[in-house]
Amino acid sequence: MSKIRSIVSAIALASSVSVASAWEALPTTAPAPANNPTTAEKVELGRILYHDPRLSSTGTVSCASCHNTMLGGEDNRPNSMGVNGQTGGRSAPTVWNSAFNEVQFWDGRAASLEDQAAGPVTNPIEMGMKNWDDVVARLKSIDGYQPYFEKAFGKNSISKDNATKAIAAYERTLITPNSAYDKFAKGDKKALSEQQIRGFNKVVELGCTGCHSGPAFNGPGTFQKFPVTSNPYLEKKYQFSKDKGLFEVTGKSGDEHLFKVPTLRNIALTAPYFHNGSVKTLESAVKIMAKLQLGATLNDAEAADIVAFLNGLTGEFPKQEMPVLPGTPGTSFY
Amino acid sequence: MSKIRSIVSAIALASSVSVASAWEALPTTAPAPANNPTTAEKVELGRILYHDPRLSSTGTVSCASCHNTMLGGEDNRPNSMGVNGQTGGRSAPTVWNSAFNEVQFWDGRAASLEDQAAGPVTNPIEMGMKNWDDVVARLKSIDGYQPYFEKAFGKNSISKDNATKAIAAYERTLITPNSAYDKFAKGDKKALSEQQIRGFNKVVELGCTGCHSGPAFNGPGTFQKFPVTSNPYLEKKYQFSKDKGLFEVTGKSGDEHLFKVPTLRNIALTAPYFHNGSVKTLESAVKIMAKLQLGATLNDAEAADIVAFLNGLTGEFPKQEMPVLPGTPGTSFY
Repeated sequence: MSKIRSIVSAIALASSVSVASAWEALPTTAPAPANNPTTAEKVELGRILYHDPRLSSTGTVSCASCHNTMLGGEDNRPNSMGVNGQTGGRSAPTVWNSAFNEVQFWDGRAASLEDQAAGPVTNPIEMGMKNWDDVVARLKSIDGYQPYFEKAFGKNSISKDNATKAIAAYERTLITPNSAYDKFAKGDKKALSEQQIRGFNKVVELGCTGCHSGPAFNGPGTFQKFPVTSNPYLEKKYQFSKDKGLFEVTGKSGDEHLFKVPTLRNIALTAPYFHNGSVKTLESAVKIMAKLQLGATLNDAEAADIVAFLNGLTGEFPKQEMPVLPGTPGTSFY
Repeated sequence: MSKIRSIVSAIALASSVSVASAWEALPTTAPAPANNPTTAEKVELGRILYHDPRLSSTGTVSCASCHNTMLGGEDNRPNSMGVNGQTGGRSAPTVWNSAFNEVQFWDGRAASLEDQAAGPVTNPIEMGMKNWDDVVARLKSIDGYQPYFEKAFGKNSISKDNATKAIAAYERTLITPNSAYDKFAKGDKKALSEQQIRGFNKVVELGCTGCHSGPAFNGPGTFQKFPVTSNPYLEKKYQFSKDKGLFEVTGKSGDEHLFKVPTLRNIALTAPYFHNGSVKTLESAVKIMAKLQLGATLNDAEAADIVAFLNGLTGEFPKQEMPVLPGTPGTSFY
């Protein structure tokens, strides 16, 4: 949690940071931690593991079930459905460009993609495996996994640590470049429409970029309070405050309602919105954010301009080959 | 059902058919019906629809969830898990090489892949959509689908008929050539080991090929009775007779316990076995089939030889690109 604490302490600075990061194109590669440099072999293994439902107790839920790379990187549901039809209280964040998040999960409780990858697998509501020893035993029992691990990490290397490293390495390749916004940022001044530019200017004028700036529109300042202001009508309708965010993890006074600032990249594809997925449309989400975070009431035209701009943040999804999951000759786990 | 009836009547012939079809390699293309010739545009649309969980009420189940092309073409579960964690009584058959089945589903109730594709979508346990009107309405509301349908079927062509035709066209491309068996059949006499050849000879000697022959090992005779003989011990353990197969659909005397003969292609990857998925290993499945269908008791060595041969039926899975599912800008269905 030390990384999280230092990031939280940076929040105080956020409001004084100017919008220096406007018009920044998305990098085409993501930084990797020193202990897990990205290699083609890890990415290949990670892509397989990410799509393997055998990492769940029932064999029905893979990482891709809730963070579906074919579908904007999540599941378009208010809350995700894990093993045996169970649902939790939060909406799955997109995996696309998650490499540019400083922390992971809505409450930021994981300091890295590696840490994040380990969580859902043994969450009883999500993938439902009893513990990672069982996951590793299952992976070891699938003959076809061994050569992939060996290529990526060396002999006899099937372990929780390496499985999550491989998944994280794969996730670092999930970047969506060349949105209309990126083209504009790189100099193609026709890439955004007049309405989209008007929308962007409104975003800056309102102060949305106080929290949503930088190339992934998820900083500066990793955590922010949501909602900032109270609004009984909206609270009754959407129950935003029921979930206390980082406080649910730390229990520390001052952490109430702190959430990771989500990226705005591909946001047009990731309805419904907010940590609890309670808002169905992007127009409503924009109006609610303006109201609760910035005290501004947007009219329909202003909201439409901003939505038009946000549509300009939909990037290109790189082609991916569908993995052939290693076989389990003649055996079943379930 | 007329096609089914005529096929059933062919069963009587099955026992007198000689094993003329031994050593037949799998065709590399599948026949298509006259009213749905395969085109690249249909296959592309079908691949997208097949992987789209928005064809289910909860947005969590696609065709690929239970017939996972990455995982031997099914889910490796005894029974599949549909929306809200519900399970049915049968084990999902593999989609790979299903184009070579004369009828579809374990009870053969669908006479074509097109008919089959329509079923699970509105089955309350499987994909849970209320009716196809709702499915079509949903597809129409996803802007990105329109151009794919237009390319495949012309303007304003989003319909149940065309959606299922596209899915069937895609499924006809799911063929796994170049197994060790196919290489052997084509003349590479080193492609199968001595044990595998011994296993094949045993398969012929026992009479397994009375039902499992032809290039997909699923004929001649589309339906067969299972179990042929009664065995109280096995029945108690596996409850094979609880499900009456074709009779459950037709209610006709004589149809009791008739099932579609499943392909043996890739069978090493599709555990657990039988219509109810009650048998976990291929070795057990082989011994049980010999006992119940042919009255033969196999020793471990004989079963191992046959399993070795069956492993030689695992083909090559052609590379597939992962579809990018058409976006639903700013809206959610759930």
